[in-house]
Amino acid sequence: MTRVTVVRDILEANDRLAAENRRLFDEADVRVVNLMSAPGAGKTTLLERTIASLDLRIGVVEGDIQGSQDAERIDAAGARSVQINTNGACHLDANMVASALGELPLPELDLLVIENVGNLVCPAEFKVGEHAKAMLLSLPEGDDKPAKYPLMFRESRALVINKMDLAPHVDADPDRIERDARTINPEIEVFRVSCKTGAGLDAWLDWLRRLRAH
Amino acid sequence: MTRVTVVRDILEANDRLAAENRRLFDEADVRVVNLMSAPGAGKTTLLERTIASLDLRIGVVEGDIQGSQDAERIDAAGARSVQINTNGACHLDANMVASALGELPLPELDLLVIENVGNLVCPAEFKVGEHAKAMLLSLPEGDDKPAKYPLMFRESRALVINKMDLAPHVDADPDRIERDARTINPEIEVFRVSCKTGAGLDAWLDWLRRLRAH
Repeated sequence: MTRVTVVRDILEANDRLAAENRRLFDEADVRVVNLMSAPGAGKTTLLERTIASLDLRIGVVEGDIQGSQDAERIDAAGARSVQINTNGACHLDANMVASALGELPLPELDLLVIENVGNLVCPAEFKVGEHAKAMLLSLPEGDDKPAKYPLMFRESRALVINKMDLAPHVDADPDRIERDARTINPEIEVFRVSCKTGAGLDAWLDWLRRLRAH
Repeated sequence: MTRVTVVRDILEANDRLAAENRRLFDEADVRVVNLMSAPGAGKTTLLERTIASLDLRIGVVEGDIQGSQDAERIDAAGARSVQINTNGACHLDANMVASALGELPLPELDLLVIENVGNLVCPAEFKVGEHAKAMLLSLPEGDDKPAKYPLMFRESRALVINKMDLAPHVDADPDRIERDARTINPEIEVFRVSCKTGAGLDAWLDWLRRLRAH
């Protein structure tokens, strides 16, 4: 049972550091979203679309095992970015995010998006100081994901179902995803979008504006 | 640096238990594949197809955070299955697999497939006693995955690119996936398949037969 104890200690230490990050965010009056998904669901593409369309000053913390392809895409889209390489860790934790904050002019931002490592499991367990968690699920991943990965659906305030343009070509049923997500988390807001065509993105942008306003 | 030490100790203890599992597999003359992918890449569907078409006696260890939907699908497909629920852990480890082996008649099997938790990161770090790792990548996940998750590509002897039927509808380039995977791992065998249509599966089945024969 040692392993379980180790995990609990890590989570407690992480929660303390997350509270400190949150204090820095509130002092700087920046709203922070922790954006999570499986690999390849389209987080970076959603952020490119968001940066191009949203009338807010946006910063991005990019979490990746290694490499900086996504941060380069965010820079090209016109937002401030900081790359965190986790060197094998499958999620961002509060300490990693804290180490990136010195590289960002927090008071000059309205919104900071923390793009987590692509993984439907561990990122949901580690707070990083965010005001809200949001998750992205791409339709081709299948409609059984809420039942199989409930923690992320329970923790997220918003669920973006991406790649809706593939609906005619895959068997997954977005109604089932939405129904099962609401069973786990009745308060979750669900957006069906295609980052490829742009369809449905306005409601997501409105959600970010409301998060900023409150 | 405490966290890193903890992880190293866990990996060393895991390797010892994996070697013990491997001894049991070899005694029973069963070949074991550790099958890994991101969530929703189609591991269970690939196994349903494999069980229906392969002239070998197959057992499956199903790893999931919670639930038993996949194990029920495997049973319905006609193979022996054991469900492991990791209760939050994002990968199978050798100890979890050891605890499942008592439920399987190993000497009556030719091939045991261990379907890992859907995750492109941690499963690649934890040996479970397998003779070979194989990974599944679905085309809609994108052609940047070898660059972003290199460890799994490096560790895997076979790469199955699934959902090739979606190629006309997504931007991902399977040639780039294959080229980048071979840069990381020159020995990797690559199969392009559609578990939906059945296209390309014969080469994958042949690979399993060769693994069984040697």
